[in-house]
Amino acid sequence: MADFTYRVLATDGAARAGCLTTAHGEVETPVFMPVGTAGTVKAMTADAVRSTGARIVLGNTYHLMLRPGAERIARLGGLHRFMDWPGPILTDSGGFQVMSLAKLRKMDAEGVTFQSHIDGSSHRLTPARSIEIQHLLDATITMALDECTPFPATGEQARESMDLSMRWAMLSRQAFRPRAGYGLFGIVQGGIYPELRARSAAALTGIGFDGYAVGGLAVGEGQAMMFDVLASTVPRLPDDRPRYLMGVGTPDDIVGAVQRGIDMFDCVMPTRAGRTARAFTSLGVFNLRNARFADDDRPLDPGCACPGCSRHTRAYLHHLFKAEEMLGPMLLTWHNLTYYQSLTRGLREAIHDGQLDRHAASLRAGWIATEEPA
Amino acid sequence: MADFTYRVLATDGAARAGCLTTAHGEVETPVFMPVGTAGTVKAMTADAVRSTGARIVLGNTYHLMLRPGAERIARLGGLHRFMDWPGPILTDSGGFQVMSLAKLRKMDAEGVTFQSHIDGSSHRLTPARSIEIQHLLDATITMALDECTPFPATGEQARESMDLSMRWAMLSRQAFRPRAGYGLFGIVQGGIYPELRARSAAALTGIGFDGYAVGGLAVGEGQAMMFDVLASTVPRLPDDRPRYLMGVGTPDDIVGAVQRGIDMFDCVMPTRAGRTARAFTSLGVFNLRNARFADDDRPLDPGCACPGCSRHTRAYLHHLFKAEEMLGPMLLTWHNLTYYQSLTRGLREAIHDGQLDRHAASLRAGWIATEEPA
Repeated sequence: MADFTYRVLATDGAARAGCLTTAHGEVETPVFMPVGTAGTVKAMTADAVRSTGARIVLGNTYHLMLRPGAERIARLGGLHRFMDWPGPILTDSGGFQVMSLAKLRKMDAEGVTFQSHIDGSSHRLTPARSIEIQHLLDATITMALDECTPFPATGEQARESMDLSMRWAMLSRQAFRPRAGYGLFGIVQGGIYPELRARSAAALTGIGFDGYAVGGLAVGEGQAMMFDVLASTVPRLPDDRPRYLMGVGTPDDIVGAVQRGIDMFDCVMPTRAGRTARAFTSLGVFNLRNARFADDDRPLDPGCACPGCSRHTRAYLHHLFKAEEMLGPMLLTWHNLTYYQSLTRGLREAIHDGQLDRHAASLRAGWIATEEPA
Repeated sequence: MADFTYRVLATDGAARAGCLTTAHGEVETPVFMPVGTAGTVKAMTADAVRSTGARIVLGNTYHLMLRPGAERIARLGGLHRFMDWPGPILTDSGGFQVMSLAKLRKMDAEGVTFQSHIDGSSHRLTPARSIEIQHLLDATITMALDECTPFPATGEQARESMDLSMRWAMLSRQAFRPRAGYGLFGIVQGGIYPELRARSAAALTGIGFDGYAVGGLAVGEGQAMMFDVLASTVPRLPDDRPRYLMGVGTPDDIVGAVQRGIDMFDCVMPTRAGRTARAFTSLGVFNLRNARFADDDRPLDPGCACPGCSRHTRAYLHHLFKAEEMLGPMLLTWHNLTYYQSLTRGLREAIHDGQLDRHAASLRAGWIATEEPA
């Protein structure tokens, strides 16, 4: 079994192109990971997800622990088999969703007790239990349990929250059972405060992880501030480990973050947008419900090879959404995920060619051409 | 361009196995046609529909004339291109849905005026307009406009309704523009009254159609009465033309109708059931929401090659429906359509082998094995 390793193959400014080797296969970075919350990337078969070029998907500990249950998934052979995804799977720690979805949360120094948003049943998540659940799921990449610091937060609030996350990071590290080809990532917190981010990065590298995530961003601080935090934080992370920006973002966010040294991304945006008729394309964002598409016999995105673009017209996609047909969300999710994979593949190639800034400018010029803002 | 022809290749009792040749390809019968109401077989890509073995699909004139509009589909290159289905398409006449879905219907001897269930707009459907719409859609097989006689109906009501349908059948024939490889089907009406069915069949064969449908069944009369009507009606239809039982049915209905000489079927049952967690299998009908499937790691139907059966467990399908994930309806629709294609393929082979009754008994024995009735 291969070790869990990361090799940087090329750099261009702060950006890197690399290769992550895991027990479940290799992943080229920069990489976008589609979100498969409850054991499925919404509106997509696993084959369809693979056809977009995706090589790693994300699963959500919070959702899966509540339904169908981590022990059940373990009995059924693990999440890879359950969802027909033999490739790498990254699971989050559950902490973020506990704070955003669960009812009657009660935080303490050791963990969080909460009620399920599904049936009101009571559950407790600690660093050790989060890691255990991710073991039961057979996650290729396990995330340390953290608290996603809200925005806005005072410096004092952000410091206390970060300190808690760092204690939990240590407990997560202790609970994690090393296996060849499996990895554990720590999560940098500290809000918008560079000195807190620096202390968090130092604490995590002191503990030692297989990869480092930047958390607590894309929570309302805006793109400019997010990029500032990345610019000050990323240089404090080890060069020889993958860097993962959690929950980000728009195509423009991803390009900017890659330019600042991020290797891995996940976001519900392409899947969620696809279900609500919004398409990410090389020409910018389209809302397919718009009446101007009713007679538009052009492909959605001329260069795209997804079924929606290669087999159908904008008029057809418009019709599907007007008629509330499931195939609308299905085809547009497929397209958006294909676009995100095409985007990150283009970024990888540009880094290898030493042309990232030029490529980024070209992408942005294309997006501006759209008649409709995101 | 090939003529629209039907060849009987084998018979077994009243049952036939044949081949329909059309402008858009060949279709082996007995055949099940998935229903693509609004330009999409619900929850399926066109590629997925093809992968089930389906060779012909049905489109609904009523839905498509209202949205996106027949003239629009014609401008966009026809229904085949619109929905990525280059194979044969049969369209119904719109009459059935006008009676079941539209608001404020007003029938007269020349047609029906109604309000759209979507936006209340006023429309009129006559035999000539129904045929024109089906031309605009580029239907491979066009259906004559008829009135689906309700059940129950008195003999007098059924006779008046049938007489109207026969007048409209003549007007439909006159409006139809013959083109090589395209066909027009007439529809036998007459309720549950053998003498009316006989008169209707005689009227239609007198006019002359490329195929003959039996309409007004599966509307509440029950399977036994439906089979009685078929037994008395089918022998009155020409041997050298395809026979289509509209809107039928369960697997057992299809087997019994094939044994009585029917060649073609359509029904929303496999697609609608798939969206509501009901699976048609060689072991009978399963409701995947049932808690007994939560830990069931077996494939849904062991012999089935669809993605749901070959890649996943019953436990996973159960989870998808509990979590209300779109992939549940997607995979179960895919399975049900695969099962219906497998069913009709098995019937074709049994007819060729002269083993239809034995095969039918074997199928029925399998269905009875299920723990759960349909």
